Amino acid sequence: MPGLMACRAEFGPAQPFKGARITGSLHMTIQTAVLIETLAALGAEVRWCSCNIFSTQDHAAAAIARDSAAVFAWKGETLQEYWWCTERALDWGPGGGPDLIVDDGGDATLLIHEGVKAEEEFAKTGKVPDPESTTNLEFQMVLGLIKESMKVDPLRYHRMKERLVGVSEETTTGVKRLYQMQASGTLLFPAINVNDSVTKSKFDNLYGCRHSLPDGLMRATDVMIAGKVAVVCGYGDVGKGCSAALKVAGARVIVTEIDPICALQALMEGLPVLTLEDVVSTADIFVTTTGNKDIIMLDHMRKMKNNAIVCNIGHFDNEIDMQGLETFPGVKKITIKPQTDRWVFPDTNSGIIVLAEGRLMNLGCATGHPSFVMSCSFTNQVIAQLELWNERKSGKYEKKVYVLPKHLDEKVAALHLPKLGARLTKLSPDQAEYINVPVDGPYKPAHYRY
Amino acid sequence: MPGLMACRAEFGPAQPFKGARITGSLHMTIQTAVLIETLAALGAEVRWCSCNIFSTQDHAAAAIARDSAAVFAWKGETLQEYWWCTERALDWGPGGGPDLIVDDGGDATLLIHEGVKAEEEFAKTGKVPDPESTTNLEFQMVLGLIKESMKVDPLRYHRMKERLVGVSEETTTGVKRLYQMQASGTLLFPAINVNDSVTKSKFDNLYGCRHSLPDGLMRATDVMIAGKVAVVCGYGDVGKGCSAALKVAGARVIVTEIDPICALQALMEGLPVLTLEDVVSTADIFVTTTGNKDIIMLDHMRKMKNNAIVCNIGHFDNEIDMQGLETFPGVKKITIKPQTDRWVFPDTNSGIIVLAEGRLMNLGCATGHPSFVMSCSFTNQVIAQLELWNERKSGKYEKKVYVLPKHLDEKVAALHLPKLGARLTKLSPDQAEYINVPVDGPYKPAHYRY
Amino acid sequence: MPGLMACRAEFGPAQPFKGARITGSLHMTIQTAVLIETLAALGAEVRWCSCNIFSTQDHAAAAIARDSAAVFAWKGETLQEYWWCTERALDWGPGGGPDLIVDDGGDATLLIHEGVKAEEEFAKTGKVPDPESTTNLEFQMVLGLIKESMKVDPLRYHRMKERLVGVSEETTTGVKRLYQMQASGTLLFPAINVNDSVTKSKFDNLYGCRHSLPDGLMRATDVMIAGKVAVVCGYGDVGKGCSAALKVAGARVIVTEIDPICALQALMEGLPVLTLEDVVSTADIFVTTTGNKDIIMLDHMRKMKNNAIVCNIGHFDNEIDMQGLETFPGVKKITIKPQTDRWVFPDTNSGIIVLAEGRLMNLGCATGHPSFVMSCSFTNQVIAQLELWNERKSGKYEKKVYVLPKHLDEKVAALHLPKLGARLTKLSPDQAEYINVPVDGPYKPAHYRY
Amino acid sequence: MPGLMACRAEFGPAQPFKGARITGSLHMTIQTAVLIETLAALGAEVRWCSCNIFSTQDHAAAAIARDSAAVFAWKGETLQEYWWCTERALDWGPGGGPDLIVDDGGDATLLIHEGVKAEEEFAKTGKVPDPESTTNLEFQMVLGLIKESMKVDPLRYHRMKERLVGVSEETTTGVKRLYQMQASGTLLFPAINVNDSVTKSKFDNLYGCRHSLPDGLMRATDVMIAGKVAVVCGYGDVGKGCSAALKVAGARVIVTEIDPICALQALMEGLPVLTLEDVVSTADIFVTTTGNKDIIMLDHMRKMKNNAIVCNIGHFDNEIDMQGLETFPGVKKITIKPQTDRWVFPDTNSGIIVLAEGRLMNLGCATGHPSFVMSCSFTNQVIAQLELWNERKSGKYEKKVYVLPKHLDEKVAALHLPKLGARLTKLSPDQAEYINVPVDGPYKPAHYRY
Repeated sequence: MPGLMACRAEFGPAQPFKGARITGSLHMTIQTAVLIETLAALGAEVRWCSCNIFSTQDHAAAAIARDSAAVFAWKGETLQEYWWCTERALDWGPGGGPDLIVDDGGDATLLIHEGVKAEEEFAKTGKVPDPESTTNLEFQMVLGLIKESMKVDPLRYHRMKERLVGVSEETTTGVKRLYQMQASGTLLFPAINVNDSVTKSKFDNLYGCRHSLPDGLMRATDVMIAGKVAVVCGYGDVGKGCSAALKVAGARVIVTEIDPICALQALMEGLPVLTLEDVVSTADIFVTTTGNKDIIMLDHMRKMKNNAIVCNIGHFDNEIDMQGLETFPGVKKITIKPQTDRWVFPDTNSGIIVLAEGRLMNLGCATGHPSFVMSCSFTNQVIAQLELWNERKSGKYEKKVYVLPKHLDEKVAALHLPKLGARLTKLSPDQAEYINVPVDGPYKPAHYRY
Repeated sequence: MPGLMACRAEFGPAQPFKGARITGSLHMTIQTAVLIETLAALGAEVRWCSCNIFSTQDHAAAAIARDSAAVFAWKGETLQEYWWCTERALDWGPGGGPDLIVDDGGDATLLIHEGVKAEEEFAKTGKVPDPESTTNLEFQMVLGLIKESMKVDPLRYHRMKERLVGVSEETTTGVKRLYQMQASGTLLFPAINVNDSVTKSKFDNLYGCRHSLPDGLMRATDVMIAGKVAVVCGYGDVGKGCSAALKVAGARVIVTEIDPICALQALMEGLPVLTLEDVVSTADIFVTTTGNKDIIMLDHMRKMKNNAIVCNIGHFDNEIDMQGLETFPGVKKITIKPQTDRWVFPDTNSGIIVLAEGRLMNLGCATGHPSFVMSCSFTNQVIAQLELWNERKSGKYEKKVYVLPKHLDEKVAALHLPKLGARLTKLSPDQAEYINVPVDGPYKPAHYRY
Repeated sequence: MPGLMACRAEFGPAQPFKGARITGSLHMTIQTAVLIETLAALGAEVRWCSCNIFSTQDHAAAAIARDSAAVFAWKGETLQEYWWCTERALDWGPGGGPDLIVDDGGDATLLIHEGVKAEEEFAKTGKVPDPESTTNLEFQMVLGLIKESMKVDPLRYHRMKERLVGVSEETTTGVKRLYQMQASGTLLFPAINVNDSVTKSKFDNLYGCRHSLPDGLMRATDVMIAGKVAVVCGYGDVGKGCSAALKVAGARVIVTEIDPICALQALMEGLPVLTLEDVVSTADIFVTTTGNKDIIMLDHMRKMKNNAIVCNIGHFDNEIDMQGLETFPGVKKITIKPQTDRWVFPDTNSGIIVLAEGRLMNLGCATGHPSFVMSCSFTNQVIAQLELWNERKSGKYEKKVYVLPKHLDEKVAALHLPKLGARLTKLSPDQAEYINVPVDGPYKPAHYRY
Repeated sequence: MPGLMACRAEFGPAQPFKGARITGSLHMTIQTAVLIETLAALGAEVRWCSCNIFSTQDHAAAAIARDSAAVFAWKGETLQEYWWCTERALDWGPGGGPDLIVDDGGDATLLIHEGVKAEEEFAKTGKVPDPESTTNLEFQMVLGLIKESMKVDPLRYHRMKERLVGVSEETTTGVKRLYQMQASGTLLFPAINVNDSVTKSKFDNLYGCRHSLPDGLMRATDVMIAGKVAVVCGYGDVGKGCSAALKVAGARVIVTEIDPICALQALMEGLPVLTLEDVVSTADIFVTTTGNKDIIMLDHMRKMKNNAIVCNIGHFDNEIDMQGLETFPGVKKITIKPQTDRWVFPDTNSGIIVLAEGRLMNLGCATGHPSFVMSCSFTNQVIAQLELWNERKSGKYEKKVYVLPKHLDEKVAALHLPKLGARLTKLSPDQAEYINVPVDGPYKPAHYRY
């Protein structure tokens, strides 16, 4: 992870995070361990939880717990345990919460926002949150946690909010939530959108998934990808990476899309764009990458071929209708091995293979993205956390969502080139003037798409 | 060109351009002919010139001249003739200039801005422009033209400026100039940056060049690309398209870059990033795509292998040091066929093959981009021109540079899907709400990179 | 063409073809010109015709006619002219025919065999050939030619046969005919099957077509291949090359096959295998590569989309039912440009675009294979001709079909490596013994498939 | 494994192997388990061992041992144990050995041949084999085993030979040995070369490795392949598959080759051909695929970058100089996880990562080839065993090496098409006659290369 190593070398001696408490909610893998160690090496105190019940690598968690930070994460948490872990990671004792949050999907941020909302309601009306008020199982747990917390301390999340300098968010889903909160005026602290750094969204999402999708498929099922028909739902960066990997492995890839621009991109790469209904009964492999919900529903799964493989590499497990599947009368779940289940429908005796219970299959069935690509993402995180912390008193960041300035994005890229033997060309001052950029960058306008 | 046909069907009956004079400066090819006919079908009067001395397809120019517009363009213009044509296309007679400009590279826009500047100088100081004041041959011609014009009418370009509603610009180079003028406060009228519509920059630049680079190479030289070493200077959209085409044809592709982010993208696709100096004496094919100047210089060319092929697919011919080559003492130019010249150095008796005299090789040696991709670009042009014209009195557009709103960009894509048999998925209202977009789009935030 | 140049350097001084008359029937292109010059440089006298009515490059024919050999070939021969040219190329005057034949498709060989057969019939029964005895137009011309010839000299083809040392055959179709003649015991002289040298079949057929199929498509139609659906009939070496080229250009490729092994290969590359009937009405581009006949019939063409492109890159034009198309009542042929015709059906007013009148589209619409790959093929030809001539008295070659020994095949490859900067590894004697091959090769058993 | 299932359906009822004893020496994986069960389902008695000390999947071995056959194999055998297992699998008790052998690499066949040789020597001279007569550790064990066996029964291998109907051999290395024995006249029984069925060599070797090489790399090291420089030693079918997989994953691939034809093929795919010495100190990943020995030697490994990955996917572990590495003074072996070792050199403190101790990395670090491709290979095995057994009394097979007739090869392919949704085209009788093949195949001449 050359970018993180370079950060330690450059910033470590000055201990810029001296006095900062950082809470992270992000897959507790060996790559994340290097991120945590880097934050610690720069002076921070760190508490950590995972943002997915299956993605923790227990040996990584153990090593970090021993050496660098308080860790609340293990592979195979229940949902109840998951939210308990999140709450633990935010709890820095009587003095309140963290100064900074590293979030992935926005669950830590959500918990604080919901906590503050409930406390405000309570202050106004005396009502405590009612878990029965929602049918969403996961949200019931969030409300339950807050309810318990309010019994002890009805201003806990308020104090947390007061202390917070900001959050840096890792992924599309969390960023979407942040922009919604910004739009509705409910965002409680500044946020840096790390996901939309080029060196994140175009590397982690695209090249990371190009690597880890086939890795997960092969480890979970040993299926030969060549010759198979694969459906990729969504052709954003994740979908592009997945489609590319499947295509070059010899699959026939079909894309589903709502956005005509992304659809036209798929077509230009030789991929037909159809609806899920068109292909549900003839394809062998289904991958959801949309970041949306309700993509592959129970009725789709019932129409699939025997032993069709269904998996999700988008952020949440609600892309696949797991609840519909689990509650279908008479369905049988046969665990082939951990994270690889065959679900057999009673009427047809035909079954489908679901990976990682519909959660991120690359983390559940393999080891997630490789270190090199995570180094790009996490170097952005370190730089974002530094930026928030260094500017905590300057007023530079309001309660809004920001992306990192382009010169920092370019810096992240530059830190990763030497490892791959690359040699950049230098602009002459004359050339720089001709295209109207500084000799040392940034080289592109903000709207540039790469 | 399904997008242009759809525009005629949708807008033609209302004749929205009734009364509008449009001057275009854009490669006079058969695809452009369809654009011109579309503008005319929507009610406009049109005058046209090419933006490149080699890119005119004479049969296309002739057909347009006969049926639809005044055309000043032929294949193989001299530079003098080129600027004469540009000035003719802007000259709508005593009443002044055009209402709208379709520009490609910004030469029509440049001429007006330089004309206005010179007229202002003259009004203040009585000085007329002096072509001898610059060593740039082409700029000498521009100043000469303006000088002649001022003898007849010292306020001609002022009147032109007054009438002008705006310009829509086609390509990176022209857009760069526009942003520079905006930054320096010298932009004289509103401009729409068509180049940065996704359906332009990510289609024309990327997929267009992926098609037309090998087409130009094969038509000009019949070279077998497989097995050769090719150097692509620049890994922007054009460079990405060229590199992809060369790689899949079996070449070993080496990229040169100044931008660490683009460099890292090249590496992720398996392309080494080196400097031109590293590879100049061992590669077989050199392609410039930078939009910058002084990329392949005389000294580079003298070090190349015998019969190395040198070509440019960036906007201007100054990416290759043609002036240095032409003026090298004793150099011999042997024309193998039109647009394909072998330049032999006297000292080594070794020669290189330069395509299209350093100008756009895909237009000089082949027929440019295929109609399908140009339909995307030109549908953006039509929509941009409509937008400028419809809003000419609303004050919506100031003297700034704008990109088209995303829903129009998505519309351009949608118009091209049926031809390729694609079927889009529809968002449910529930899903749309979940990801916080309208059911009918736009589906992505402005900063989305595709 | 590095292999041919190397042959001249190695063999030229000894003039091994001194006294040999060589007749060639092979596309008269600039690459063939270098082959002819090489044969001449090694001492041969040469007469030449083309083996395809459209494939002659007139400037190449003219240059050869001026400097090196008697040439009977021009672009756009009628069938009648074609066979006249073939007969002229075989006519070395009173002394009889050639010593050696370079054949492509076997037409020169066919003419001699039919001539001998007719002369034998005449000697036995006094019957002369009757062109009316067949409905095959082309075969009528062959019989007509022989009939005329017999009036002058009823033993002409017998004398030709007597003199002939052998033939080296270039392509699959001709080779098939030779093996049929060998099987039926009617082969009149030794034949070397150049087509099945690895450096021919796996290079010319595969890499040559991968280059020249898109070249022909783009020059003829400027069609954007990306996004289109292309059907490739046949997945032999030619079909593999065509499919690869179309796929990487962004087309969705569908393969038709009769052979389950080749079909399974296509599937492993991600290409669906279907029948022509399955896809005839939805595809955009159709390419025949089978070497068989009656692949795309009139009824197929009538079901195609408007402006579907139909072309053949297999040896003969009977892969496409041109006769059915030409004779369909009311069909209109609109020549867009030479070798690119739109055929409009009267009932639907819908039309298809047929390239090169169903003949080899890469030669009819572009310039055939690039020199590098033809250098591989033609170096095999030179070496085969040398082998036949050198062994003409040794009895090594009987009236059978032979392939070149593997060490000569490897030699052809080796002659082409330096140009591409390759550096071979050398076996140690110990390693050579371990895998039981000579240190200098041949390195593979005869059955090795590469 | 559709081919094996189809065999059971077609042949099972007739019990053609009734009375046949089959010994197999072939990686004891779950795919092999299906092969064993198929042989048993057709009536055979079966004993089995693995042909590689690391490739056994213990759960597969256990299941077979319980249900279908005697199994002598476990993951992580010592060499001593390996040869003991081989000898056990050949020992069918007092009545002698097996009727048929399924061999992979030829170790079972070797043991019998060496046994017979030693027994003959003993009969002639009274000498027993002397393990000290060789420095090859593995051959010492073979001789040791035979020596022990001779003490008990000096004609044991003779009786084994007498009973043996024949062997079907799975892989290149074993086939090479068989041809050497045929050439030297020492082959003791008929052999069918299954490796050179098209549906084996072109599927297992090529597509199997294209799947399992990256699988093994990712499971063992989680390395990001994109951006790395990979060296593939050997460009036969295995090397082609590995190179293709690495290239499409974004690596820069360099090939080393001894054979100019294969070298030229690599170049045509855009892969530079260099020597190992040229690149040893700059590459990140090294893969041996040659089937030869002494490819990556100690001196190479000492020059590699820190943490370079070295692995072998050719048959034997002697492609990498493991002995040199293990015995280098002061070298430290750090086991990162089973089958993934870091070897640190004492002088530089730099280390390389060696997978599977130099043995087949796809079997040692992953699960070998996927079932679909193994179904092709193993259906060939079943058909070969049937052929040998059915013809055991007909004299059809002499003590020579045979390949399966092409119609059986095509049958294997055809059995795998329905699973992938393919639809073959049928030849018309007229077309079949035109290309001179039967309507139902075989469709290609023996020398066809696919």
